[in-house]
Amino acid sequence: MAQPSENPARRVALDVMGGDHAPQEVVAGAVQAAREGNIGIILVGPEPAIREEMAKYDTGGLDLTIEHTDEVIGMDEHPAEAVRARPRNTLSVCMQLIKDGRADAMASAGNSGAVVTAAVLGLGRIKGVPRPALGAVLPTATGKPTLLLDIGATTDSKPDYLAQYALMGSAYMQGIFDIAQPRVALLANGEEDGKGDQLVQAAHGLIRAIAAKGMVNFVGNVEGRDIPKGEVDVIVCDGFVGNVALKLSEGLSRMLLGAIRTEIYSNPINQLGGLILKGAFNKVRAKLDDEEYGGAPLLGVRGVAIVGHGSSHARAIKNMIRVARQAGDQQLPAKIAEGVAAAGAATTEA
Amino acid sequence: MAQPSENPARRVALDVMGGDHAPQEVVAGAVQAAREGNIGIILVGPEPAIREEMAKYDTGGLDLTIEHTDEVIGMDEHPAEAVRARPRNTLSVCMQLIKDGRADAMASAGNSGAVVTAAVLGLGRIKGVPRPALGAVLPTATGKPTLLLDIGATTDSKPDYLAQYALMGSAYMQGIFDIAQPRVALLANGEEDGKGDQLVQAAHGLIRAIAAKGMVNFVGNVEGRDIPKGEVDVIVCDGFVGNVALKLSEGLSRMLLGAIRTEIYSNPINQLGGLILKGAFNKVRAKLDDEEYGGAPLLGVRGVAIVGHGSSHARAIKNMIRVARQAGDQQLPAKIAEGVAAAGAATTEA
Repeated sequence: MAQPSENPARRVALDVMGGDHAPQEVVAGAVQAAREGNIGIILVGPEPAIREEMAKYDTGGLDLTIEHTDEVIGMDEHPAEAVRARPRNTLSVCMQLIKDGRADAMASAGNSGAVVTAAVLGLGRIKGVPRPALGAVLPTATGKPTLLLDIGATTDSKPDYLAQYALMGSAYMQGIFDIAQPRVALLANGEEDGKGDQLVQAAHGLIRAIAAKGMVNFVGNVEGRDIPKGEVDVIVCDGFVGNVALKLSEGLSRMLLGAIRTEIYSNPINQLGGLILKGAFNKVRAKLDDEEYGGAPLLGVRGVAIVGHGSSHARAIKNMIRVARQAGDQQLPAKIAEGVAAAGAATTEA
Repeated sequence: MAQPSENPARRVALDVMGGDHAPQEVVAGAVQAAREGNIGIILVGPEPAIREEMAKYDTGGLDLTIEHTDEVIGMDEHPAEAVRARPRNTLSVCMQLIKDGRADAMASAGNSGAVVTAAVLGLGRIKGVPRPALGAVLPTATGKPTLLLDIGATTDSKPDYLAQYALMGSAYMQGIFDIAQPRVALLANGEEDGKGDQLVQAAHGLIRAIAAKGMVNFVGNVEGRDIPKGEVDVIVCDGFVGNVALKLSEGLSRMLLGAIRTEIYSNPINQLGGLILKGAFNKVRAKLDDEEYGGAPLLGVRGVAIVGHGSSHARAIKNMIRVARQAGDQQLPAKIAEGVAAAGAATTEA
């Protein structure tokens, strides 16, 4: 069934067992991506289960191959322990396919901590990048996405890590969203220069230094209230803060829309109002929808790795694969390596 | 006009010049609080301006006195510099009134950083409290408030600070919201024990230790998504993270409700739907309304200080004064001092 693509490395290795709706929705998304995007995909997971799902679709002419492995990492497992205990887990096999030149990108809607561990162990870090960062592409009020990073790959950051996140985030928004000079901001507790805890204050100076050399378009500090505004393209923060901010955003949106839903269903007249406004609510929900953005890129490793939301259905999986393909075509890791090397002198702490 | 109250110290010193709508709304709120709550208030600010505002109301029989000062600190001024440059600023005069035994609480909707500085300089810290914390009383899905602290009094916390926040937040929710055993949680990037950055991991152990002695009811870690759920009474975090979380909550709520409003006004049919759901939206907005909670308490100083939102109108000012009165009656600083002294051994870093 597989049609070898012209360049064998131009394939996306897909963790078929990652996410709450695996393998069904993952295979469905892969078929869509292969069909609509003409993307070569290596499906990584237990062959019988994959074949069973694939049998539901007409896959003729699609570049879909299977890489068998039985080892799977659960969503709630301890990442480092699980990756080390099962070296043939789907994630590590994806990384190996990249290392062997059989794929140039990987994608998973599984355990994000395990993706980070498997990528660092399997692909290695880009030279000069002490810690990778995971970025969340957030929907905003302007309709333009903002990349928030790090959202938790590294919980105890140092100033030079944050400066590298600025470079890496900038490269991602250039490569994937075609923004020539991404506006990069630093998350702080006030807009003025000099605000922030010690980490942020020190990072501010380092980012100013690389901005002065034209390496990033640094617009200064933003506050928590600015995250959903969509006025900047990249917001840099430590992984602990980013994790809290991302989860708070999800929780609060759900709480607010839930409260409105409860009121609408509280009586028939409100239900009528809800019916009239159905299209309006759908538009607002579409504005909050981040499935189009394809998931969170892991930046700073020697290969493309995209992590999708655990709740991903086929459409989100398809977009995750598309973004992985794009990042591979853009040779994102090479671009990040160049940027980091050039900025090395400015970002390395004395 | 002033009717001296029986206990002269049982008065709230009010910064008449604090907030976006000062002095008009501040004086209006003070008149309401004095009338409805029978609260003695010392209005601190320029006497002519205060007299002009008071002339709009029938203040006969109310315990309102004026403490004149011309020095005012603006919302955007650097707190420490401004407080030091103008020692007779309204905030420092409020603190002096407490120190002199003429008031037992103060309240301001002004520059929160300046309140912290003026309180630390004017009142001093409670013995054993290295840094005060500012708490935000947040509305939640359950309708019960959650106290998030610190929201920015101290930007570089240490583990023992967070343990003290647990004690102080617990005392506040007991005293003001009458919760016998407030559930106290630690904000982290995962619910499991052991999650968190180094600060949070270390704080977790300290809070466990004081919880084991029955001093707080510690329920473990919560994540960002749990903040709006209302399942705990106190959430402890470092001031930088708390500041980001608070401002993000405000910004995201505004963004979401704004997006819905835009859709409703986009055409006449949606407007009809919006009209039908007006009551429903008002209920949701009321759920998000934190004006009833009276503002952010500054905990850890030798006196009661409550900071209101800069945008406060009369109703919020009235509630801020009411909460200051309550905290004074509860002798909150004394209770916190007791708790901190008792926990001293467990919370002091070795």
